[in-house]
Amino acid sequence: MFMAGPYASRLLADGGAEVIKVEPPGGEFMRKSNPLRGAYSGFFGHLNCGKKCITLDLKDPGDLAVIHALMPTVDVVLENFRPGVTARLGVHYDDLSELRSDLIYCSVSGYGQTGPAAQLPAYAPIIHAASGVDLSLTEYALDQDQPVPNRSTAADILAATHAFGAICAALVHRQRGGGGDYIDVSLMDTMYHMMGYEVQTAQIDNPPRPITFGPTKTKDGFIIIAPISQLNFEALARAARHPEWLEDARFSTVLGRANNWETMMAEVAKWAKEHDADDCVAVLSREGCPCTK
Amino acid sequence: MFMAGPYASRLLADGGAEVIKVEPPGGEFMRKSNPLRGAYSGFFGHLNCGKKCITLDLKDPGDLAVIHALMPTVDVVLENFRPGVTARLGVHYDDLSELRSDLIYCSVSGYGQTGPAAQLPAYAPIIHAASGVDLSLTEYALDQDQPVPNRSTAADILAATHAFGAICAALVHRQRGGGGDYIDVSLMDTMYHMMGYEVQTAQIDNPPRPITFGPTKTKDGFIIIAPISQLNFEALARAARHPEWLEDARFSTVLGRANNWETMMAEVAKWAKEHDADDCVAVLSREGCPCTK
Repeated sequence: MFMAGPYASRLLADGGAEVIKVEPPGGEFMRKSNPLRGAYSGFFGHLNCGKKCITLDLKDPGDLAVIHALMPTVDVVLENFRPGVTARLGVHYDDLSELRSDLIYCSVSGYGQTGPAAQLPAYAPIIHAASGVDLSLTEYALDQDQPVPNRSTAADILAATHAFGAICAALVHRQRGGGGDYIDVSLMDTMYHMMGYEVQTAQIDNPPRPITFGPTKTKDGFIIIAPISQLNFEALARAARHPEWLEDARFSTVLGRANNWETMMAEVAKWAKEHDADDCVAVLSREGCPCTK
Repeated sequence: MFMAGPYASRLLADGGAEVIKVEPPGGEFMRKSNPLRGAYSGFFGHLNCGKKCITLDLKDPGDLAVIHALMPTVDVVLENFRPGVTARLGVHYDDLSELRSDLIYCSVSGYGQTGPAAQLPAYAPIIHAASGVDLSLTEYALDQDQPVPNRSTAADILAATHAFGAICAALVHRQRGGGGDYIDVSLMDTMYHMMGYEVQTAQIDNPPRPITFGPTKTKDGFIIIAPISQLNFEALARAARHPEWLEDARFSTVLGRANNWETMMAEVAKWAKEHDADDCVAVLSREGCPCTK
């Protein structure tokens, strides 16, 4: 249901797998979700195209028997119930691997199958907040403590792609004779995978203020500039006609720029506000500095 | 270099692959990047642990010969140069697949190997801006046109996980006798994978205003609440002691809530501001409504 599981199995379907999506009576939640085209949800179609769908009431023994009968020909089972639900329903790895010993079974959940948070209900926005991504990725930029409202689905899509990769890796392992596997993907873990910088700074005293990328105002709109490498920075100095930046100790090295990022971007902003966005992007691109409107 | 390629090969190393990372003379950019532990970058370590590293100048024929000599035993080549560079250096898929016919070769780039934007320099922040993620995921929340500064690396990590999954899928295909593959992963494509809702609304007239998740202010701090499913909403109405919401046509169905989301959350905010954050989270969690501080 929802996004993480369906997007993972959409990737499998895109790759050529025959995917059978099992929905509860009445169909899954997303079938009624905006945006609608007539009575049908475009968003549901986006996440589920290429799959076969079947409606089953897993609490009904006859319907559960349909799952069990399918198992000998099933390579992979993917589920994203809250931990504990599959065992209650009789579709846990322990149940289904008895019917197919080399089964690959992937669970996707908010906080993983075990641990103190395992039973907490979780959607992507909750995981973003709980992981610190919402606040830590913007707090320096905003100099305020209030997280920015958003409708990112990063945790869902990252969990889905990690699940897709892990399932394919398990298939490689099985083809080499390694047997089946149980895979435990959590949305929370994938957020920490996106926060390598933060995970590292949390382990040192007095970490440096991180670089934040934000809009630069021009005469007629915003652009974004990312002078990350030495060559990018040299291109920026050429584009803005400030060759003296190349000799300025605050800016002339990677670490210097990292530690004086806002000062440097304030200088860049003085240049940008005198020009149209298109002109800024044209000259920056010509010189080789990454940017866009 | 940087993040997308290194994180993809870190996932391969974590999965048991022997990964040989080829760096230019002097080492790659991230070795000098914050946060540092003494002379060493924690961020570089985070992205590259578990790999063997070798320094080669690919413009030197002797060093290039080292790559070519390795090829018969190499299963996968992963590169994230700007399109065109590998051909100039003699390490393009066409060069290396002559030395190993069933080679799996994955390119990771900003905008893909072909098309009008292929040669534009690109880092994650540029791709976020160009894709519309930065603006479209927050514009309704902020009711302003200025994107929010941030230091998200979503495009890098999403491209890395898509590359990891695609490489593993290609290994499955090869093990089944399908031969080698060339894989073209672009950061931009992975952004659109994260924007399924937006991709769909862009195709219909007068799309509904989307749901945005944001902080709800309590007496002593912010919480986030995601009453997405019917059960979640009923739990919220119980927790806030507003049983009349269950009968309110604006809120009582999935589509009703989607179309009246801000009105509903304004009602929720009236309740939350009378209570401490811990108390809100405790009662919401007890009733079964997803939330966190």
